[in-house]
Amino acid sequence: MPKITNNPNRTSWIGYSQDTHFPIQNIPFGVFLTRENVITIGSRIGDYAIDLGALQELGYFDSVPLTDDMFMQDTLNDFISDGKKTWRLVRNRIGDIFDKSNAELRDHKEHRERVIFHMDDVEMQLPVQIGDYTDFYSSKEHATNVGSMFRDPENALLPNWLHMPVAYHGRSSSIIPSGKAIHRPQGQQLPNGSDKPIVAPSTSLDFELEMAFITTDANNLGQPIPVDKAEDYIFGMVLFNDWSARDIQRWEYVPLGPFLGKNFASSVSPWIVTMDALEPFRCEGPEPEQPLLDYLKQKGKKSFDIHLEVDITPENGTATTVSKSNFKYMYWSMSQQLAHHTINGCRINSGDMMGSGTISGPSADSYGSMLELSWKGEKPVQLNDGSERSFINDHDTVTMRGFCNNGPIRIGFGEVSNKILPVYQPKPKSKTAK
Amino acid sequence: MPKITNNPNRTSWIGYSQDTHFPIQNIPFGVFLTRENVITIGSRIGDYAIDLGALQELGYFDSVPLTDDMFMQDTLNDFISDGKKTWRLVRNRIGDIFDKSNAELRDHKEHRERVIFHMDDVEMQLPVQIGDYTDFYSSKEHATNVGSMFRDPENALLPNWLHMPVAYHGRSSSIIPSGKAIHRPQGQQLPNGSDKPIVAPSTSLDFELEMAFITTDANNLGQPIPVDKAEDYIFGMVLFNDWSARDIQRWEYVPLGPFLGKNFASSVSPWIVTMDALEPFRCEGPEPEQPLLDYLKQKGKKSFDIHLEVDITPENGTATTVSKSNFKYMYWSMSQQLAHHTINGCRINSGDMMGSGTISGPSADSYGSMLELSWKGEKPVQLNDGSERSFINDHDTVTMRGFCNNGPIRIGFGEVSNKILPVYQPKPKSKTAK
Repeated sequence: MPKITNNPNRTSWIGYSQDTHFPIQNIPFGVFLTRENVITIGSRIGDYAIDLGALQELGYFDSVPLTDDMFMQDTLNDFISDGKKTWRLVRNRIGDIFDKSNAELRDHKEHRERVIFHMDDVEMQLPVQIGDYTDFYSSKEHATNVGSMFRDPENALLPNWLHMPVAYHGRSSSIIPSGKAIHRPQGQQLPNGSDKPIVAPSTSLDFELEMAFITTDANNLGQPIPVDKAEDYIFGMVLFNDWSARDIQRWEYVPLGPFLGKNFASSVSPWIVTMDALEPFRCEGPEPEQPLLDYLKQKGKKSFDIHLEVDITPENGTATTVSKSNFKYMYWSMSQQLAHHTINGCRINSGDMMGSGTISGPSADSYGSMLELSWKGEKPVQLNDGSERSFINDHDTVTMRGFCNNGPIRIGFGEVSNKILPVYQPKPKSKTAK
Repeated sequence: MPKITNNPNRTSWIGYSQDTHFPIQNIPFGVFLTRENVITIGSRIGDYAIDLGALQELGYFDSVPLTDDMFMQDTLNDFISDGKKTWRLVRNRIGDIFDKSNAELRDHKEHRERVIFHMDDVEMQLPVQIGDYTDFYSSKEHATNVGSMFRDPENALLPNWLHMPVAYHGRSSSIIPSGKAIHRPQGQQLPNGSDKPIVAPSTSLDFELEMAFITTDANNLGQPIPVDKAEDYIFGMVLFNDWSARDIQRWEYVPLGPFLGKNFASSVSPWIVTMDALEPFRCEGPEPEQPLLDYLKQKGKKSFDIHLEVDITPENGTATTVSKSNFKYMYWSMSQQLAHHTINGCRINSGDMMGSGTISGPSADSYGSMLELSWKGEKPVQLNDGSERSFINDHDTVTMRGFCNNGPIRIGFGEVSNKILPVYQPKPKSKTAK
């Protein structure tokens, strides 16, 4: 296996400010559309998108064993299927190409014009075709808050919670990239005090601050993945907003779990940050509070120190940061999640997405959902413009940011930002057919 | 829209016995691998598979507007995306080609040899790349039985059940075709009377007798599908065995629903029977017991009369039929399921699969799972060989069959049949590396 290149002193001939999320130490992967309507796999340095398809065509990856059209595709699935060694060789090579001292591309104007686009000139797409999407429930603070509100504060955590990373299956088809607007969902709800359900627009539309990891092909059906091998199958991470309609969820979710309260939309940040880029930010997670079964016992530092923030921006207004949390609060690690997911032999494919569950921290300003921040609406959240929110209004934009900060280098995820539109209204049918 | 061709008196120049599931009135769609290792989209008459890719190449579909490589693919997704008019034109045209009186292919030996294979000479594949898989819970008898066993016989149905087709998301990656063996899953369980979970092979491995429908691209994110338009987006149906490990399921499923108790395997019959072929078997479903919300009110006959059977066959033994049920027992129809699934704007794609949930009938011999047939193991099921089963043993094969019978014509689904192997054992590592 080649070594990771993560020299904190390296600089690039592409300039960027010191607080960029995308220094040459990051080198994330994504998919973008150019103004010429070409879709390509790309990376990013500072405010510039890099067309990896064009780089490959121009021969810049000839030193790396790759299939001919590896980057001339509209999803990263095939690249991810190629495995960890390929990911590392390509990321290291991109670092070399854009290193300040490397003249290959730097001094080749014609090539540069084919390869480098300002971010304003590209439109980011979903980076992978998501086969299956699983959502975990791995923040103890979140599970405790929700259990306190909806069941019993004395027994907020259910008996299984400290023994396994509880999870459920979500809907892949409704996962969208940052930037796309979302219609408020309607659905069945049971009004307070009534025994007759109604259909109405959700009045408790919520975000969930999550991160998600993307896997490669990991196993055959029937074969578990050992916890200490699990990270080999994780390509990287994104920010993840698991939009939720609490009124719809509350009425539907027994006994089989959340369904329409969740599957109207989930949104992701478009750049996948690799585990190699995150390696310098590895940290301890919480200590287990119950003895772990062997298949969940993980050696070493199992978490990552990733700062997370959520803003709400009303129409024509300014942003208010309503939550500051951190990925390191997660009780269960990604490796434990993947080991648990496969203990029964469940098959994991390239492009599968695994959400962390809402990441709430210990303090009230670090909660990862409006349900918790406003405590079911009992303590509305104040915004800069003097208005308040128990949940999300039409025309509000919710923006999540995430970054690691470790001395001078910041490795970030950019943002996932989506605006809420009113419930979809079918167009009235024209009476005069054309 | 062209008319359906469903002449019950039509016969084919391919011979078959009267009790075949695949007379010329069926014309299902599937994907198969030939002995020459070619994958193609196909259909079936009697015991013969028909290579639709070869038929298209030879010009037999020139009268139907199709893209050039429509049938030279390894999944039906693109064909299904083309929509109902294309499905019907192709099915009608296949009926014409194989009609007893049509000499085009019948009398062209060279073409016949390229197009027609005995079923023994092909290996059936999954017919679609499944984007998302949803499992409903739409048999009142099943929901009542399970509620009685695990909660309260006096309040077996939860309050939402009669108001909506309750459902949850399942795992697409673990769906396999009939014929593939399945390893018994292991996983966390809480032994009776203990508060310490263990990891062990499931001792209550169960089948669930279901059917599933496959959809085409139906909507954009945010847009509901009206109940009376829903069938336009249903391509066809298959038999579906939603394998379940009751001990794993019981410990994990609160509060977010079934996960590892289900996602180790689900198996499907390989031929998708179209809604056009099922049209003559349309029937009334159960009357609603509660007033329906408008979006679930469906006009006309909403169900289909499909006989269902389950066999258990021990290793080297003979089959015992342990259940006889019928699709028409379903309380919620497929159209109601799809209208509910999209009331919040959830996106439905080509190749999505929607399971009915376990189809239990009113009598104890029509229950669709061992959990119900053996009533949690209290009344073990007797097999022909004198042995008994509370759940499924290693080396047992479970086979489900389904067919419609309406006078002389039988339209069937074939079968979904899978054998259970012991828990997967990793190969011991060789000490002498090669």
